[in-house]
Amino acid sequence: MTSLGEATLPMPADRRDLSPLFAPRSVVVAGASDVSGKFGYEVARGALRGEHRRSVYLLNRSAATVADRRAYASFAEIGEAPDLVVLATPAPTVPAVVDAALAAGARAFLGLTAGMEETAERAIAERIRAAGAVLVGPNCIGLADAESELELYAWGRFSAGSVAVLSHSGALGMDIGRGVSDAGLGVSRIVSMGNCADLQPADLVRDLIRHEPTKVIAVYCESLGDGRDFLRAAAEARDAGKPVVALVADPTDATTRAAMTHTRALLSDGRVVRAAYRAAGVVQVHSIADLVDAVRVLAAPRRPLGRRIAVVSEGGGPGIIAADAMARAGLHVPEFSPALQERLGAVVHEVGSPANPVDIGSGGTVSAISAAAEMVMESGEVDAVVITGLGSSSDFFIKESVRSAQTDRAMIGNLPEAEALKGLETTSAKDHTGAEMFVAASSRTGVPGYGAFFDPALTTAHIIDSGGCPVFRSVDSVAQAVALAVPRDDEDADVPELPEPRGDLSDDDYFTVRGFLQGAGIRYAHAHRVSSLDEALTAAREIGYPVVLKALGSMHKSDDGGVALGLDSDAELAEAFAGMSHLGSEAYSVEEMVVAAASAELILGAQVDHQFGPVVMVGVGGVYSELLSDVAVELAPIGVDRAERLIRSLRGASLLTGHRGRPALALRAAAEALSALSRLIASSPGIAEIEINPLLLSTDRAVGLDARAVRHGHR
Amino acid sequence: MTSLGEATLPMPADRRDLSPLFAPRSVVVAGASDVSGKFGYEVARGALRGEHRRSVYLLNRSAATVADRRAYASFAEIGEAPDLVVLATPAPTVPAVVDAALAAGARAFLGLTAGMEETAERAIAERIRAAGAVLVGPNCIGLADAESELELYAWGRFSAGSVAVLSHSGALGMDIGRGVSDAGLGVSRIVSMGNCADLQPADLVRDLIRHEPTKVIAVYCESLGDGRDFLRAAAEARDAGKPVVALVADPTDATTRAAMTHTRALLSDGRVVRAAYRAAGVVQVHSIADLVDAVRVLAAPRRPLGRRIAVVSEGGGPGIIAADAMARAGLHVPEFSPALQERLGAVVHEVGSPANPVDIGSGGTVSAISAAAEMVMESGEVDAVVITGLGSSSDFFIKESVRSAQTDRAMIGNLPEAEALKGLETTSAKDHTGAEMFVAASSRTGVPGYGAFFDPALTTAHIIDSGGCPVFRSVDSVAQAVALAVPRDDEDADVPELPEPRGDLSDDDYFTVRGFLQGAGIRYAHAHRVSSLDEALTAAREIGYPVVLKALGSMHKSDDGGVALGLDSDAELAEAFAGMSHLGSEAYSVEEMVVAAASAELILGAQVDHQFGPVVMVGVGGVYSELLSDVAVELAPIGVDRAERLIRSLRGASLLTGHRGRPALALRAAAEALSALSRLIASSPGIAEIEINPLLLSTDRAVGLDARAVRHGHR
Repeated sequence: MTSLGEATLPMPADRRDLSPLFAPRSVVVAGASDVSGKFGYEVARGALRGEHRRSVYLLNRSAATVADRRAYASFAEIGEAPDLVVLATPAPTVPAVVDAALAAGARAFLGLTAGMEETAERAIAERIRAAGAVLVGPNCIGLADAESELELYAWGRFSAGSVAVLSHSGALGMDIGRGVSDAGLGVSRIVSMGNCADLQPADLVRDLIRHEPTKVIAVYCESLGDGRDFLRAAAEARDAGKPVVALVADPTDATTRAAMTHTRALLSDGRVVRAAYRAAGVVQVHSIADLVDAVRVLAAPRRPLGRRIAVVSEGGGPGIIAADAMARAGLHVPEFSPALQERLGAVVHEVGSPANPVDIGSGGTVSAISAAAEMVMESGEVDAVVITGLGSSSDFFIKESVRSAQTDRAMIGNLPEAEALKGLETTSAKDHTGAEMFVAASSRTGVPGYGAFFDPALTTAHIIDSGGCPVFRSVDSVAQAVALAVPRDDEDADVPELPEPRGDLSDDDYFTVRGFLQGAGIRYAHAHRVSSLDEALTAAREIGYPVVLKALGSMHKSDDGGVALGLDSDAELAEAFAGMSHLGSEAYSVEEMVVAAASAELILGAQVDHQFGPVVMVGVGGVYSELLSDVAVELAPIGVDRAERLIRSLRGASLLTGHRGRPALALRAAAEALSALSRLIASSPGIAEIEINPLLLSTDRAVGLDARAVRHGHR
Repeated sequence: MTSLGEATLPMPADRRDLSPLFAPRSVVVAGASDVSGKFGYEVARGALRGEHRRSVYLLNRSAATVADRRAYASFAEIGEAPDLVVLATPAPTVPAVVDAALAAGARAFLGLTAGMEETAERAIAERIRAAGAVLVGPNCIGLADAESELELYAWGRFSAGSVAVLSHSGALGMDIGRGVSDAGLGVSRIVSMGNCADLQPADLVRDLIRHEPTKVIAVYCESLGDGRDFLRAAAEARDAGKPVVALVADPTDATTRAAMTHTRALLSDGRVVRAAYRAAGVVQVHSIADLVDAVRVLAAPRRPLGRRIAVVSEGGGPGIIAADAMARAGLHVPEFSPALQERLGAVVHEVGSPANPVDIGSGGTVSAISAAAEMVMESGEVDAVVITGLGSSSDFFIKESVRSAQTDRAMIGNLPEAEALKGLETTSAKDHTGAEMFVAASSRTGVPGYGAFFDPALTTAHIIDSGGCPVFRSVDSVAQAVALAVPRDDEDADVPELPEPRGDLSDDDYFTVRGFLQGAGIRYAHAHRVSSLDEALTAAREIGYPVVLKALGSMHKSDDGGVALGLDSDAELAEAFAGMSHLGSEAYSVEEMVVAAASAELILGAQVDHQFGPVVMVGVGGVYSELLSDVAVELAPIGVDRAERLIRSLRGASLLTGHRGRPALALRAAAEALSALSRLIASSPGIAEIEINPLLLSTDRAVGLDARAVRHGHR
């Protein structure tokens, strides 16, 4: 993990008025064009679709008309103060257009123009902010708002709905918008954010909290600006019942290479992103398909509140595959209580099973499945019910029969086709009633219901889906989407506020860093700085043998022979001292050798992520650390309770907690040190990284044995 | 992990003639019916669709006609020896029908009838085998073969194609068949296997090797019969170029519960299944969607041979998301050589990137993407090329424009719609040529190509897909399917033959098991069995202090205080002996205390899986074992080289290999012990489980410190 140091970012535009942007009384398209394929053509066409809601002015210096309307040569000609100005003119002309627009009273800008110099971009953004106006982009492909019938997303039209889309990439924004439209949810607002010279993702998220039609917010961000502010905005949205779902790419060589080229963005370490988004309740997905699935679960009338899932299927095979999918997604398929199983006996065929997964028995009807689902929903034993295995529902057989009927009549002759179809139609009507029962039971009990049908185009599936119980094509999709939508267990986690800056580190000398950590309340072994063998011997006698000798400098690492442990006498100390002479250190540390009958090592670290600010991390140390790659990360600062839970979340925590006859170690003391370290990084703006490796944990205390820090700009 | 002991299974029906089953000259439907919804109706209807290929006789005792044809009352009336008899009569009548059919010369049976007693099932299967005939089912829903135009799958019709489907579950078989049909691949043969009283999955797989139209074999099995034979059949199919893709459920409480109810099958431990399938080259998937995706990659003209993937996209965002998907699936997106990047410069826009992922630049055409893809394919630097981010291809814009044109004309008036559409059509034609270039380049270079398009219904996508470069809706799907299709790296792994049975274990006494392991070549510490303190002291003096004392019996476990380590003197030994008196053991072991300056513990185990037979496993022992849950499993027996690779594959292997200044331990000696243990379990039919825990590994040897075994039937 690396830190980028101090980025200079515009102040968060908290509470700036975005209504001229998303519900303007008038729109001016600067650079409107009759030439198909140009932004100025596409956006003018979109703007004109809203002419019944607002004045639309097309600005073009050389043409008399555009789209059969008067083309204006300047803002002066328009004679009305424009709410929103679309910038679709060539890059060199943009500053002059912005100035003229501001002079005419423009309150919002949508910058489509690409290819501006960074300095020019920054300058127009500052002029726009100074005038109290706002800017989206530049280098974006537009925005749209369904409620205000504003269509300025070049090349993209989406059905109106409940999902807001914010994307740095215009292409991915379009794919996400189309994905949620195709899924029947529709788009409430979409913004291609481009270079974010003024408005940041956080500003756009905050504005959506007040945007009534929006229920769920989907984002794709390569860079978040002030990431901590974005997290706060996302947490506010979540608290307002509008969860944020983020499409993210983990940093690999290839994705880092590509993001740097694409938007000059440096991706944060995946563990930091996960910790940050988890704290803010942001749902993370890695593909558009997963994003759409998660949004479908979150936009449904009822959201899953826990991980206990009932599976009800026709046939054993589909139930087994579904239960496996749930387990792989981290959900539980608990065995039902005997009482519930007995009640289910009334609708479950004798070759089926009432245990969970419930196998209603081969040939079971939709009504039987719904009756079983209803009993399960009423029991309070699960948090959601998934029905599956209805590939053989009567809808399907009708479709198949109709498909075969004509050829069969020709090939085979007089089969009792008509009666057969009539029988199937009766069954089909019953199936539809069963589907309505399922929807009604979910609504009445408040327990969310889902369907996993091989063919979601069947009428039965459609009834269930449109009744507020999303239907997916595969059980894997349901399982993953539900698992993503369940709120995290430790609801105390939130986006922590940064404390006021306090003192800072004056240099990165070992004793300075130790002292700084001790000042924050972290316990360290006794130590003396010495520069000669005589001083070392004096120090050792004062501390008492056994002692540790460390050669200071950039290399006090055991790998280099710069650390000697367990020195028991003057002679051993002298020998160790001589053995380090080749390292050329000017100073040494003589330290108490902390001996504990039972102990373990932790690694405590903290650093400043360039997007999300200070983070703290803990891992099991020593030989385990490299084996387990078992590190827990959280946004700093954290309290002692949260720090203790973080340590307990490590896979290696059983080494500390007195498992299997080992003594319980002083976990609380370690948590106090971790919390102190997290407060320290959060309140010391000069520190880029700081590490206690190891922190020795014994049964009664936690003692730092080493210390290292890197200041911003001093790597 | 548990072992079921000796299952009695029918002998593998290797090389039995299945042509009467899948390409019969005549079919008799016993229990044919005019009542829609009955098996006897559905299957008769299907059989009659093949009347132009074979005689079809409908058997019904009470009706004179079925489907307007003569209904026969008995086999005698038919007057021709029937090739294939479909059993669709009630369970109690089946034995008599089978006897009559065999008497009439029947050579194959398809048993649809459900609800037979297990003993009756076994009896008819034996009679059928004895007569040299074969049986599928009973309790299945049918079979179909496209080549022979045989349609006997009740309620399911599939388009003809290259994928064979074998499923225990009729419902999942139908879903799989429909899935591969919908994906445009089609079904070559489908068998609902039911209870497998006679023909086993292995028999059906072997027959498919000779089935010309079949290219890929998809299976869903809850129980495999003789699993080792199934693996051999799957490996033979793979070697014949027809890979097997298996839909599997991992055993959890819920799936185990459900499988037991459904087909009385006990699921094997997931690690064993993975090892077994890996050895046979079986591709494992967990959902029908993943199965269809994997089959599409495997059925395409060119299969990926390695993990190096090129991503070529229009726009940076889609490339980043694609590269992330590849990494998460375990594929590599390597940075291209400078030479290749320079060549790509000719087609990559200056705001794009030629590095990999290749971003052709926003607004790039399909032709430019194809030109870049072709250069990449020719370079030899990757094993496959994925193109993505074509959401904005001209096909899409034509669709969107046509969609908007009418409303826009009404709302907006005279837009230059006609010229715009004409322009798009020209671009579109160019895009199609570009798509054809991509397909041609893949075919010429032999490098497989794939597409990930948000809208696979676009013409561009269709050209690519039908040209042998499968197109998926999401990059995640491509990534996962390609990762599954890449052959495993250690191609020496195969399904090992079982050696001839040798000696066996007479009892599970500690010294007997130790001796047995020593006889197989595994080194153990010196030890003496003693039953009194005097004998213990004598033994200790002979071995030399320090020694270990173990109380024998079912509980020689350190947890119970039955093991004392590092006893340094007669006094310490006597004290330890006295301290174990409460355990009530009649015998003790006094052992050499193996002391090594540097050492690590391994756990070696072997057991007999009820489906796959003997397996061997190794994990890092001691305190690590529970932390790492790091166990490697392989089918037994394995050679020493394979054993060494297995140990090296452990995450904890760095503890053994001399990493980070630790001494290298005697890995080869451990591998020899592991190989010996694997040969031992494979050649000793009486042993259910045997374990060396721990095997102490020092720098020069591997010494067993404990031994435990469970014999079949003696748990």
